[in-house]
Amino acid sequence: MTITHQVTHQVNFLEEGVTAPRGFAASGVTAGLKSSGKPDLALVVADNAATAAAVLTTNQVKAAPVLVTAEHLHTSGGQARAVLLNAGSANVCCGPDGVALAREAAKTTATLLGCTPEEILLCSTGVIGVPIPRQPYLSAIPAAVQTATPEGGDDAAHAIMTTDLVAKQFAVGVTDSEGGSVTIGGMCKGSGMIAPAMATMLAVVTTDAPLYAGQADAMLRRAVDKSFNRISVDGVMSTNDTVVLLASGTAATPVDPRAVEDGLTQVLQALATQIVRDGEGAGRLARITVRGALSEPKALAVARQVANDSLVKTALAGADPNWGRIIAAIGATPVTITPGLIDIAVGGVTVCAGGVKADFDPPAARRAMAGDEVEVTIDLGLGDAEATFLTCDLTHGYITINAEYTT
Amino acid sequence: MTITHQVTHQVNFLEEGVTAPRGFAASGVTAGLKSSGKPDLALVVADNAATAAAVLTTNQVKAAPVLVTAEHLHTSGGQARAVLLNAGSANVCCGPDGVALAREAAKTTATLLGCTPEEILLCSTGVIGVPIPRQPYLSAIPAAVQTATPEGGDDAAHAIMTTDLVAKQFAVGVTDSEGGSVTIGGMCKGSGMIAPAMATMLAVVTTDAPLYAGQADAMLRRAVDKSFNRISVDGVMSTNDTVVLLASGTAATPVDPRAVEDGLTQVLQALATQIVRDGEGAGRLARITVRGALSEPKALAVARQVANDSLVKTALAGADPNWGRIIAAIGATPVTITPGLIDIAVGGVTVCAGGVKADFDPPAARRAMAGDEVEVTIDLGLGDAEATFLTCDLTHGYITINAEYTT
Repeated sequence: MTITHQVTHQVNFLEEGVTAPRGFAASGVTAGLKSSGKPDLALVVADNAATAAAVLTTNQVKAAPVLVTAEHLHTSGGQARAVLLNAGSANVCCGPDGVALAREAAKTTATLLGCTPEEILLCSTGVIGVPIPRQPYLSAIPAAVQTATPEGGDDAAHAIMTTDLVAKQFAVGVTDSEGGSVTIGGMCKGSGMIAPAMATMLAVVTTDAPLYAGQADAMLRRAVDKSFNRISVDGVMSTNDTVVLLASGTAATPVDPRAVEDGLTQVLQALATQIVRDGEGAGRLARITVRGALSEPKALAVARQVANDSLVKTALAGADPNWGRIIAAIGATPVTITPGLIDIAVGGVTVCAGGVKADFDPPAARRAMAGDEVEVTIDLGLGDAEATFLTCDLTHGYITINAEYTT
Repeated sequence: MTITHQVTHQVNFLEEGVTAPRGFAASGVTAGLKSSGKPDLALVVADNAATAAAVLTTNQVKAAPVLVTAEHLHTSGGQARAVLLNAGSANVCCGPDGVALAREAAKTTATLLGCTPEEILLCSTGVIGVPIPRQPYLSAIPAAVQTATPEGGDDAAHAIMTTDLVAKQFAVGVTDSEGGSVTIGGMCKGSGMIAPAMATMLAVVTTDAPLYAGQADAMLRRAVDKSFNRISVDGVMSTNDTVVLLASGTAATPVDPRAVEDGLTQVLQALATQIVRDGEGAGRLARITVRGALSEPKALAVARQVANDSLVKTALAGADPNWGRIIAAIGATPVTITPGLIDIAVGGVTVCAGGVKADFDPPAARRAMAGDEVEVTIDLGLGDAEATFLTCDLTHGYITINAEYTT
């Protein structure tokens, strides 16, 4: 997940989230949708109409907010004032009533903000097939609008948590070689039902950079491909995944779009990494890097297969340098490989060389895997392309969370 | 997994395994390859050269015994005297030494049986990348040959167990409408690293039916497609999967080949079901039936996706009628579906009708899921095709087995 083009701009990490860029406010309030009584309704609002783009789930079963967001972006031509997000119910498989409620929420929010309903985007997360309680949901929108402030990013990030253990935020300041500077900030939620080849979970990213709609859309898709589409917790594709980008254009200076895209990619990668680190039951993050492939998509396909393999993921849980499970997963991909050319290292210890067991010390390899993060490096020995994919271990915690509760 | 052609023959279940048909002997001996000291070397031997066919793993990383078995069947034109199987090491990723050892084992066995090395087929199971200890392996072959008897099927089935909790055997007698009768018996091992679209694990099936090589091969492939290719424990494809069929032709009467194929399919389906029931950590078997599809392959693709979904499998563990996870998995397949037409029932309780929550009593649905077996029925509402796929729940037991030991 390294940026490969030459970077002539400077990126600084900021201690903030979705309200880091100028021109945005946010809030998190309690509508009573979560049984815990914690905040469950978040709003991210731009001072004025912002350029907007979204990447939405490719699941054929799509949530009402996903359908309405797609329609609104199409109608508005890529403009939005605000994103309204709720936890507690995913508003999917709730029939026409679910879609009607999403439209009503957009209309209520729009009236309060003085914009059109098409300028409101929607995200929901929670249990599938359980309707959002209409009255509590709609009645809490005024409070969300009234309490939105330029310091509210943290409140919003907390309100969208479900099985997440931590709120997920990240922001950067980017300064290009001409001195132009912008800020990019984001928040997201996600812990289970996380799989690749899709938008993955809920995320809102804001920037004060001036972008036009097609540019924002293309930039967001490329950045999602390098971040959220390269992570997996459990290989399960959700019905509600949404990543929204809002660009206010309020930056004081013009800025190189490549610098903006680099900063955006870094924010999304940081958020994606936070999701894997907080994967349901996860004790360990693994960075699966596949080198020596004939193309980047092939490297990525191999890395994804290894990252989603239940036996590799349980070996990660046990800090077991079980390279046989890794090479078996590599062989199961449609990507043509030559077993005798494959090298595998875990935590920097080469455990397989030329397709057979390398001469290594198992206790040392176990120690090298025992940290919070482990690097798994696979060299296919065929070409020069590479890709990295993030996953987490499969533990008793995942079973406990998902076998004992309806989530 | 029901047989859909008209059955005019009779199938009786027998209390035996791989030595049920006339003309076969088997044994299980201790070579010292398993650290437990339990029997680990099995032989299934035909009295005379038998027609032979095999379905082998499609994993690109293939074990030495898989490579040698494929070569031998090609050279012999589909004839074999015996199958030598060992547990304790998979003999995969062991380089040229691994292949040389497999050839040497075939030669040793052939000399003792008075046949050519090409008439010996090989199977191995155990840890990847760990060589089989040469001397203990080769030295135990004479004992395996000398102790093989027509009552030895049970010993052989025990010798190939790894994480299996029970030995897996099944046999049927088939009598066709003309009074012709044959016997078909089989054994297999498998508990983890079980995934579809492949041969899956180790199995040996014998029959006294007279079959020619091409017929045996075609019949075996069709039967595997209806049995082992419709089960999953953990979605992981192994490097050693092998199903061998030996047909001795010693039956006293000619028999309708369709009756043989039906019996063969029933034996493989029974063995496949035994594998899922003994899936690593499994507490519950689920029969996922997809109806109302436009074609059987489409029904199967949907059933496979649902069967391999980690969130569906943990919901099965918790007896949680969480149909939202099922419909999300359906939507993630490449098969085109219409969410609003989907009905889902668990344990006979309709939990989703027309893509939304059905009116059901959650405690009743939980009770309906709480047994050793649960039927999950999905109606896509699009056509007349259907398919059934077997899976098991994902439990703490799977994590314990695979995170705490190198397997």
